[in-house]
Amino acid sequence: MAYGKLIDYADAAPEARAVMDDIKRARGVPDVNNAWKAMARHPAVMKRFWQRAQTTMAPGALDAVTKELIYLAVSVANGCHYCSASHTALAKKKGATEEQLAEMVEIVGLALEGNSYATFYGQDVDPALKA
Amino acid sequence: MAYGKLIDYADAAPEARAVMDDIKRARGVPDVNNAWKAMARHPAVMKRFWQRAQTTMAPGALDAVTKELIYLAVSVANGCHYCSASHTALAKKKGATEEQLAEMVEIVGLALEGNSYATFYGQDVDPALKA
Amino acid sequence: MAYGKLIDYADAAPEARAVMDDIKRARGVPDVNNAWKAMARHPAVMKRFWQRAQTTMAPGALDAVTKELIYLAVSVANGCHYCSASHTALAKKKGATEEQLAEMVEIVGLALEGNSYATFYGQDVDPALKA
Amino acid sequence: MAYGKLIDYADAAPEARAVMDDIKRARGVPDVNNAWKAMARHPAVMKRFWQRAQTTMAPGALDAVTKELIYLAVSVANGCHYCSASHTALAKKKGATEEQLAEMVEIVGLALEGNSYATFYGQDVDPALKA
Amino acid sequence: MAYGKLIDYADAAPEARAVMDDIKRARGVPDVNNAWKAMARHPAVMKRFWQRAQTTMAPGALDAVTKELIYLAVSVANGCHYCSASHTALAKKKGATEEQLAEMVEIVGLALEGNSYATFYGQDVDPALKA
Amino acid sequence: MAYGKLIDYADAAPEARAVMDDIKRARGVPDVNNAWKAMARHPAVMKRFWQRAQTTMAPGALDAVTKELIYLAVSVANGCHYCSASHTALAKKKGATEEQLAEMVEIVGLALEGNSYATFYGQDVDPALKA
Repeated sequence: MAYGKLIDYADAAPEARAVMDDIKRARGVPDVNNAWKAMARHPAVMKRFWQRAQTTMAPGALDAVTKELIYLAVSVANGCHYCSASHTALAKKKGATEEQLAEMVEIVGLALEGNSYATFYGQDVDPALKA
Repeated sequence: MAYGKLIDYADAAPEARAVMDDIKRARGVPDVNNAWKAMARHPAVMKRFWQRAQTTMAPGALDAVTKELIYLAVSVANGCHYCSASHTALAKKKGATEEQLAEMVEIVGLALEGNSYATFYGQDVDPALKA
Repeated sequence: MAYGKLIDYADAAPEARAVMDDIKRARGVPDVNNAWKAMARHPAVMKRFWQRAQTTMAPGALDAVTKELIYLAVSVANGCHYCSASHTALAKKKGATEEQLAEMVEIVGLALEGNSYATFYGQDVDPALKA
Repeated sequence: MAYGKLIDYADAAPEARAVMDDIKRARGVPDVNNAWKAMARHPAVMKRFWQRAQTTMAPGALDAVTKELIYLAVSVANGCHYCSASHTALAKKKGATEEQLAEMVEIVGLALEGNSYATFYGQDVDPALKA
Repeated sequence: MAYGKLIDYADAAPEARAVMDDIKRARGVPDVNNAWKAMARHPAVMKRFWQRAQTTMAPGALDAVTKELIYLAVSVANGCHYCSASHTALAKKKGATEEQLAEMVEIVGLALEGNSYATFYGQDVDPALKA
Repeated sequence: MAYGKLIDYADAAPEARAVMDDIKRARGVPDVNNAWKAMARHPAVMKRFWQRAQTTMAPGALDAVTKELIYLAVSVANGCHYCSASHTALAKKKGATEEQLAEMVEIVGLALEGNSYATFYGQDVDPALKA
């Protein structure tokens, strides 16, 4: 059900082309994913998002796989198909195993279930849980 | 804005009381959180949810802190206040640092942003990303 | 964490007051809930929403309790505290039992879990499931 | 926009095959839906989810059609395409009529609208609505 | 991943056909979009939704483009693909520029990010912000 | 139901204090809102978010009020109480009227309703709607 226009490298604006070059270098790939070809419609959005993603997803207090699993879990909970497919691939490329993916998705299901119980049962935050 | 009735141990049904005993033993705490006192209204729901949570959150291919961060990230993305407060506390108890929590919450923000761009730009999943 | 101004009957605009009269009559109550006192800030929104709610929630092919449980389930899944509290009360007033409420909330948890698996596993709709 | 690999019975792990046998028996169908062929990638997740679904969706205080309508309503509110298609089919198979489906979907729309008004107008829960 | 049956004008019920005529007249188009052909399955839902949409989206205190951008932003945040595609087209038809669309989608990303920080950091509403 | 620790100017880290100074100058206010005092727990997150918010919300192809209404609409649709309260106040400060706010919230309700119908009725994107 694709409805967005993809802009290939040859047709991209200079600013979008520079981001594409940067992505290809950073990931060691010959071409960028559709997500970037679609965002190339708006080069300024594309550039800012790519830069922020690079910063936020770089290993820090959390390692690269954990970061990908968190990104993926939020995307799955949020119902984003493209993001689920692309970040599953990224997580695997960075070393995530099928066992880790299976545990991640069960936590998503558990959390969504727990969230809805908190809404229905309507308890207040315990004083001891306040930061 | 609490609106749910809390059922203390003394007033709980036997099935709910058994779960409370189990939680106190497993977590080494003198009393259970409000979430469980509220769910004690429906002991069968409480029992099944506690058992599933124990299984899903036990360390496996993912360690306990990573599991808590994933649960927390989904809850934050999903807007659950109680769950955010209680799983931040649980994550810290299991060893998560403030630096890890800060990185987790920035990934949540990034993922939600990325998810909405995928919806707006409407690209199809790349053939290479299909499992 | 209330932040909305409540407008009491005495201070309400004539159009909002007419809706309040109608609600009190329809529900046989001496005063309206806070939801309506808050919406009285915008009488036209309040009037249209009340009229649509009356039409949509009236017994039809589905009975009144089933309708309330569906409204409640959506509100719980969606994380709406006020709606969970008010439609639990409405459901009970119309005859819903604690057993029915417990089964409803477990279905919400199951559906949210199933929804996230559909996103993660990414299967296409079976031809036989197409309308 | 399918991106998940489907695993047919012949290629499934023994644990996944046992669940497939169970589903075919329980539903009286010659083959399972794509949802199960996709989940067969992770047999333990598949097995636990199927067992929970069987328990939660069995007629109890709520009948089978009401349960399906609640599951469907949550899935529709949550934007799950596959779940909407598959649970519409299940609801019809169990006896739901087009009139009931039309009333269900209007309640979903009403509830989502009401939920957003509760957020915007920001009223506190009425003391009388607390459990 | 279409799974809904489309009902063409020739096969539509009289009530649905009347709405289709109305849409074609109001928008100056030779045929209605798939959204309406799918809703024609339930003419009463279709009729009420069309009438409400006409009223709500008519220029008032907000102009037509601003209204479309708000509708679109909510649909993007909510992950609705069809709605994103159709309301992008509607917004452009009413005069929205690519620059406006790019700014709109960045606000969606920012708001979702800000929403999740409010949940995680858990601050109370400032007294001065209460209406 | 506040559960987050607020950090006042006097106790804030230098990096957080610099952001607070910047906010006070930019908005012409004597103190920052609770949102910033809570985010001061993680100065780097606070700093990046404030800078991005300044850039994204500055008048451009869309004026300041329209931008605030879009931010607010997404926050309301997403169930964020704090964000609804704070961005209603910001929108008013920048000139939004009660009539505009009332129209905005009705569009949110309409869009959420329309989004759920798109999921339920399951139509494909019309070729003419593709970008």
